[in-house]
Amino acid sequence: MQNIDLNADIGEGFGPWTIGSDADLMGVITSANIACGFHAGDPDTMAQTIDLALKNGVALGAHPGFADLQGFGRRRMHLPEPSLANMIQYQLGALSAMAQARGAPIAHFKLHGALSNMAAESLDMARTCYAAALALHPGIRLVIMPNTALEAAARDLNAPMLAEVFADRAYTDSGALLDRSQPGAMIHDPQTAADRMVAMLQTGCITSHTGRRIPTQIDTICVHGDNANALQTARSVRAALQTAGHRFCSPSFSA
Amino acid sequence: MQNIDLNADIGEGFGPWTIGSDADLMGVITSANIACGFHAGDPDTMAQTIDLALKNGVALGAHPGFADLQGFGRRRMHLPEPSLANMIQYQLGALSAMAQARGAPIAHFKLHGALSNMAAESLDMARTCYAAALALHPGIRLVIMPNTALEAAARDLNAPMLAEVFADRAYTDSGALLDRSQPGAMIHDPQTAADRMVAMLQTGCITSHTGRRIPTQIDTICVHGDNANALQTARSVRAALQTAGHRFCSPSFSA
Amino acid sequence: MQNIDLNADIGEGFGPWTIGSDADLMGVITSANIACGFHAGDPDTMAQTIDLALKNGVALGAHPGFADLQGFGRRRMHLPEPSLANMIQYQLGALSAMAQARGAPIAHFKLHGALSNMAAESLDMARTCYAAALALHPGIRLVIMPNTALEAAARDLNAPMLAEVFADRAYTDSGALLDRSQPGAMIHDPQTAADRMVAMLQTGCITSHTGRRIPTQIDTICVHGDNANALQTARSVRAALQTAGHRFCSPSFSA
Amino acid sequence: MQNIDLNADIGEGFGPWTIGSDADLMGVITSANIACGFHAGDPDTMAQTIDLALKNGVALGAHPGFADLQGFGRRRMHLPEPSLANMIQYQLGALSAMAQARGAPIAHFKLHGALSNMAAESLDMARTCYAAALALHPGIRLVIMPNTALEAAARDLNAPMLAEVFADRAYTDSGALLDRSQPGAMIHDPQTAADRMVAMLQTGCITSHTGRRIPTQIDTICVHGDNANALQTARSVRAALQTAGHRFCSPSFSA
Repeated sequence: MQNIDLNADIGEGFGPWTIGSDADLMGVITSANIACGFHAGDPDTMAQTIDLALKNGVALGAHPGFADLQGFGRRRMHLPEPSLANMIQYQLGALSAMAQARGAPIAHFKLHGALSNMAAESLDMARTCYAAALALHPGIRLVIMPNTALEAAARDLNAPMLAEVFADRAYTDSGALLDRSQPGAMIHDPQTAADRMVAMLQTGCITSHTGRRIPTQIDTICVHGDNANALQTARSVRAALQTAGHRFCSPSFSA
Repeated sequence: MQNIDLNADIGEGFGPWTIGSDADLMGVITSANIACGFHAGDPDTMAQTIDLALKNGVALGAHPGFADLQGFGRRRMHLPEPSLANMIQYQLGALSAMAQARGAPIAHFKLHGALSNMAAESLDMARTCYAAALALHPGIRLVIMPNTALEAAARDLNAPMLAEVFADRAYTDSGALLDRSQPGAMIHDPQTAADRMVAMLQTGCITSHTGRRIPTQIDTICVHGDNANALQTARSVRAALQTAGHRFCSPSFSA
Repeated sequence: MQNIDLNADIGEGFGPWTIGSDADLMGVITSANIACGFHAGDPDTMAQTIDLALKNGVALGAHPGFADLQGFGRRRMHLPEPSLANMIQYQLGALSAMAQARGAPIAHFKLHGALSNMAAESLDMARTCYAAALALHPGIRLVIMPNTALEAAARDLNAPMLAEVFADRAYTDSGALLDRSQPGAMIHDPQTAADRMVAMLQTGCITSHTGRRIPTQIDTICVHGDNANALQTARSVRAALQTAGHRFCSPSFSA
Repeated sequence: MQNIDLNADIGEGFGPWTIGSDADLMGVITSANIACGFHAGDPDTMAQTIDLALKNGVALGAHPGFADLQGFGRRRMHLPEPSLANMIQYQLGALSAMAQARGAPIAHFKLHGALSNMAAESLDMARTCYAAALALHPGIRLVIMPNTALEAAARDLNAPMLAEVFADRAYTDSGALLDRSQPGAMIHDPQTAADRMVAMLQTGCITSHTGRRIPTQIDTICVHGDNANALQTARSVRAALQTAGHRFCSPSFSA
């Protein structure tokens, strides 16, 4: 039975606006991916989110995205590579400073939205983003999706990494996420999500929507904070895996 | 004859836009106050400005301002004190990270525009801003205007500080800046600016527009980068003070 | 028994974020004050809000604010008067165009947040904002708070106006809003709010928190969309006033 | 000899920043493409630009772009089509209102930067953008690049259009712009630019960089305001065409 990490995107409000129930979710997850001000997360939101994570013993991670508040970082933008690197260091630096002022390190790093999707398809882009982060924090753990350019870039850079599976998303036979427009792409039932995670950890495989098994390292499980059932799914996954003998712990605390 | 520092606001472009001639000014000054993305200075501009400063042996300083691109941080905004602290740490953290990625520290800290003007009038506000910066960088030098709440706050916090005079601005008899709407408030002639600086350093006094002398510590001289004569004024001040026997050096390098 | 208008701030989301329950509130109010993109309300939100209002037979109003998303337009900013006028015309023009593309006019105009609070204290500022709006739409109805610079400016400009009372806010003896920091400033109980409105309309007076009556024209009642009880308060006020014999109708439709 | 229009992108500053010499260029061109606040052009800049155009008898055009100040609207972004339409109506509406407040109509419409480049390749996108503009101003003249989806969309919509050639850009044999990365893509010499324009108007053909002639309607000539030689090029083109017997006039004034 292995230690397992449960991560969610957190602090994705801005100004007067909030998304999801961060306070509740913080009681269930072990790693928080914190928005850094460009697609969500103003400095006040970031400070409150760090405080909330520390109070709950949740590890801090940077979750940078494109400078597109209206699109929530989900619209593809085409930037030159030096601009990507600068954008990453700016956001990671801002969050790191706010965490440092509260005595806490940034443990992990996960790209957001369209930035993540584009980097998952482009080795150059993934390497640029990851190298920019590692230049600031050589020991930062890169959250990667197995079998994508994200994994390849992390391996090229010989960087610490955390292989991630999604509790609430179906996979294709090639191990990619099933497009949201496809039926069954989103797994809304908390129990189904929990059963899948138990099976994936037991077998060490991603199970595709057709039942195919794809052997994969699994270090962390993601639940989406903006899903209506996010909290139920997170609780259900955690309970089922604990029953199956797993222990929840951020990799940065278990190391 | 003392070492003296010459500082200017630098990197105050954004995206396609530039202000002043940073490349030329960097050859004359010893400390650069770098915009941090809120009133000016996107991540690319910041990276280029840091590179330019390092190439010229110029010390790096953070120059945070209000989140108001259109107003260039010159319009007064009223923020709660926790928001001020968060805004400062976000900007200082972002710049520090980009400098650290290039192997350089942030040596000094100077508030910008309306944020500086408001903090100069409010001890609480000045203390909030300075304490936020010191929490990240305890040794950072605070650039303060003598006889204002900026100086009082820096003294309260027992922080390293640099007392600043302006080469191109006239002073009132109480040591404040003469309002820009008053005749003679701006000193456009480079030679006049240079002569004033030599006299102020020789006497250890600010000379007011009526000729009154106000004893003051002087550690650094500011030239404004967006003044049409900025480059001429900077060169003229530097030449005159060197002729008078002063040596130009950033305090962070002379320490 | 008079016709009465019920207004609320609507469309105050941005990108992925929403505030309040616009769809429900639209079924109760008669006039919608629509955010115009600066403090809230991106172009997509605006389009959806206009469509929702038209579907519900609710009159459209412009609700411009300061360019401060993080602060939701509630932080005071100090702008030159020409900048205020330009900011008003930009926002009103954008909303008017989107409404016109859907065949609907903009019926009323109400300043938001800190912009409204500052204009309520400054005749110059109120006049600048209102004149800018009237230059585009001479017949637009200005929603004003009685006994403030807003009313004085509207009278000076000889403009159509709607005098507003707040269903969920207490008043001082001088007819101003009781500061939110004071006990009882917010009226959370829907029945209490409804009873007050019936009494105010019957007497033609604002009733202060000490019971004093201040004679006032009352054309429209505001309920706040971001109040947790907003929907209950709106329904309660509407039901009580209908029982008392009033008829709800936007002034632009009753004219 | 035909009437000919000379257009340039104008008002592309923001806040404290300016690009090019609008005041000089306004004395030479006949149509101004005015930035509308998303890629450049805050409300104050827009007001000043409209005033400057009216003073010079220059026709007003809307020049909307992506909401990307840092990238100046030159970075490709992927938006859903309803978002494109809303973004267009918001920007066009804002500019139209500010122009209307000064008694002037918006005569033409030209997409900016990456928005224009993407629409030139996508009939759906071009049609969405143009239909959104025409819904507000049915008589607005669409500035199109011949032989692109921009032209096809304008023809589909049966809309008034102005076919544009670039004075300072080379063309491929298929009539597209030669990529900026290719040698000779930019025509920096004002006399060369002028000679080309005289030849193109005389022959009614675009001349490619290899000398091939592509028959084309030519209604307006564009000079780029951010080119270092923009002013010289504009003056040179105008002088050469006047010598050749052409008369400069905005189509909206000649109609």
